[in-house]
Amino acid sequence: MNYLHFSSRIFMPSCISSQPKTIWTSSNSENESKVVKLLQSQKGHCTKVSRSVNMENLQNGYLFPEIFMREYLHTQKYPNARVIRLGIGNTTEPIPDIITSAMAEHANALSTVEGYRGYGAEQGHMALRMAIAEKLYHNMGILGDEIFVSDGAQCDISRLQMLLGSNVTVAVQDPSFPAYIDSSVIAGRAGNFQEETGKYKNIVYLNCSPENNFFPNLSTASRADLIFFCSPNNPTGNAASWHQLKQLVEFAKANGSIIVYDSSYAAYISDGSPRSIYEIPGAREVAIEISSFSKFAGFTGVRLGWTVVPEELLYADGFPVIKDYNRIVCTCFNGASNIAQAGGLACLSEDGYQAITSVIDYYKENAKIIVDTFRSLGLKVYGGKNAPYIWVNFPGLSSWDVFNEILEKTHIVTIPGKGFGPAGEEYIRVGAFGHRESILEASARLKNLV
Amino acid sequence: MNYLHFSSRIFMPSCISSQPKTIWTSSNSENESKVVKLLQSQKGHCTKVSRSVNMENLQNGYLFPEIFMREYLHTQKYPNARVIRLGIGNTTEPIPDIITSAMAEHANALSTVEGYRGYGAEQGHMALRMAIAEKLYHNMGILGDEIFVSDGAQCDISRLQMLLGSNVTVAVQDPSFPAYIDSSVIAGRAGNFQEETGKYKNIVYLNCSPENNFFPNLSTASRADLIFFCSPNNPTGNAASWHQLKQLVEFAKANGSIIVYDSSYAAYISDGSPRSIYEIPGAREVAIEISSFSKFAGFTGVRLGWTVVPEELLYADGFPVIKDYNRIVCTCFNGASNIAQAGGLACLSEDGYQAITSVIDYYKENAKIIVDTFRSLGLKVYGGKNAPYIWVNFPGLSSWDVFNEILEKTHIVTIPGKGFGPAGEEYIRVGAFGHRESILEASARLKNLV
Repeated sequence: MNYLHFSSRIFMPSCISSQPKTIWTSSNSENESKVVKLLQSQKGHCTKVSRSVNMENLQNGYLFPEIFMREYLHTQKYPNARVIRLGIGNTTEPIPDIITSAMAEHANALSTVEGYRGYGAEQGHMALRMAIAEKLYHNMGILGDEIFVSDGAQCDISRLQMLLGSNVTVAVQDPSFPAYIDSSVIAGRAGNFQEETGKYKNIVYLNCSPENNFFPNLSTASRADLIFFCSPNNPTGNAASWHQLKQLVEFAKANGSIIVYDSSYAAYISDGSPRSIYEIPGAREVAIEISSFSKFAGFTGVRLGWTVVPEELLYADGFPVIKDYNRIVCTCFNGASNIAQAGGLACLSEDGYQAITSVIDYYKENAKIIVDTFRSLGLKVYGGKNAPYIWVNFPGLSSWDVFNEILEKTHIVTIPGKGFGPAGEEYIRVGAFGHRESILEASARLKNLV
Repeated sequence: MNYLHFSSRIFMPSCISSQPKTIWTSSNSENESKVVKLLQSQKGHCTKVSRSVNMENLQNGYLFPEIFMREYLHTQKYPNARVIRLGIGNTTEPIPDIITSAMAEHANALSTVEGYRGYGAEQGHMALRMAIAEKLYHNMGILGDEIFVSDGAQCDISRLQMLLGSNVTVAVQDPSFPAYIDSSVIAGRAGNFQEETGKYKNIVYLNCSPENNFFPNLSTASRADLIFFCSPNNPTGNAASWHQLKQLVEFAKANGSIIVYDSSYAAYISDGSPRSIYEIPGAREVAIEISSFSKFAGFTGVRLGWTVVPEELLYADGFPVIKDYNRIVCTCFNGASNIAQAGGLACLSEDGYQAITSVIDYYKENAKIIVDTFRSLGLKVYGGKNAPYIWVNFPGLSSWDVFNEILEKTHIVTIPGKGFGPAGEEYIRVGAFGHRESILEASARLKNLV
């Protein structure tokens, strides 16, 4: 990391600030040691605590704050432009009243003797755990006891990293949500970054591209202890079929791997693809599932998610993973906000579920407009049918160049595919979150791009 | 860990369940391997993923769920007893209406186009960060930019562990809040547990007892990279003086250590002791501060806390710790619930602050009743003045025996001091959270104990 830019004011405190920020630079150790010397001479005191080599090994700023920064710099350059944000997957539509009322009611009750609640169970309220099991894992044999309510999928990914020993090896889909790799780097599992390939040495990258229908070729894939697998996929928007997931479960079983299945976008599935890995026989022995209310119910800011750890999932020595995960949740977490949990329970009521389904349908209609727009430009477009993400191919072009040109010419923020891994080069991810008129406006601007 | 008890139903899913749970047993590797063999023969599939040696190295169930379990078993034995909970530090009094109204209002607004909010800044809303800086760190030079809003101190402790490399050494007060040690064990910093001392080999235990006025003898203390220091202390209730903290800062500076200062109970200070480590000159170069709305505003279930990382705090190579911590917060966390943050902001308004101060005064009055009760029994009693915890000495007795006898004879749940470290033997911790009539009832029962 190059932090020369920080010498006047070491830290860029928030995602949006008037300070310049190092953007997506590669490391330069010669410059770095000069900077260190400068800092040491200017600063009074350095502790003797070494910086984590794992943190040093992170290549870039985390993708999404970087995108925020690019957007910010753009608005500085074009103060009058109306920027349309199709980058970060940030929900925009109001949460149905039946759900917010449940949260407000819970909040108000906290000021009464009868309604006050202190610490809840670290694992989540049993009523919510049961409701998740019954509503979302019906007929899959998942018990409320196996569900751990959390403050979101991203946090649970890190808790899973804390759970496991440092020798654990990791595989990811390429492209994939960056937190899988970045949290693996922080946990010291990734090995060195290799500039020539854009990959970390010890991470197995499972290529997912149109050539393999976005499903990795498992017959040639290397074994890894953990396989992060997201379906519907972020960023490609592709949902794996039942037969593909059956292959994945068999692959994991044959290799003794654990699948960490991210189903955060399951509610967007339209074509009957599985919404959970537990629809596949045998998955209880090989898979953890991470999921979230964020894109399901617009809870991005409310913060609520869950992780399923089946009792049958065992370490090599027969010890149940769920026991250690429970310990992690008790020691390193203290339960999700009880107000958010009241909202989660309302989401899973009959009326609540119907109401959030309408919001999802709205975003899916957005997705269709975006898909049609890029197709009308003659581009190859993937996703958008089973996910709120559209994956657009720009053959031969750098994804950062495409990102920059679209931002510059249309004031639309997308995400460069390379931010999701080397296989994302030549792609951008376009999100379907936004008010309809913004989506239509974006569509019009894009159509005028050529 | 002994998990023989789980063979019929491997996992004790929640803190409260009808299943028996292994309580506070020491490991027995011979039994364990038999269990493993049994499990392996009965179970269909074990993955090839090794269990983390760090998780294996954890000695006990996390303290607080263990206490819940003891209480649960007690209620099974005495179904008609009215149990009084002075164990877990769980707030009981309603949150002032001005604060819950702000949260309810925020929740309701989420169902409107204007009031809807998706992802907020990972570091927290700037208005809240600024309010914390201004209200709680006035004249200490702490900027809003240096404050990272979180879902609670316990979670931040684990995030700090993720931040640091595996070679980092750790010191704790003995006794201390168990998450410091347990999270260090999970991060692989603790070394083996030594039965004869009750200590982990690589952790420095800083004895805090009446003999040294609950402040460690720093002239003989070994150096560690990180010094977890909690004041007012959980469990002893002791608040370090300005001069003591000055010594601590100087010790850290001389040793190149980082202090992780836990000020979660600062609002209970009555005698003018510092409420923050940053009241001490030079602390910005050597200290991180973790704090919480839990005991300050009754937010134990709402979940809100913060961590301060000053810009001047540098690793040995001059790299600012705040930069890496910001990266951890962006990658492994995604911000606290926006509803909880709205509540936090209301706590720091003039009226909100005054209202929560009244609740704190109520708990302090409880503490006084408990202190007087144990004193009237002729026992040596510490804490309770600057903290909601009372630390009661039972010379020559095992703390678990005292815990059990009090529970058995009075139906009052406390916490055995040994749960907080070997120096806690011969003590129990008694919490001051509870409705007044429960506290008075507990007092009456205790007075009748002899």
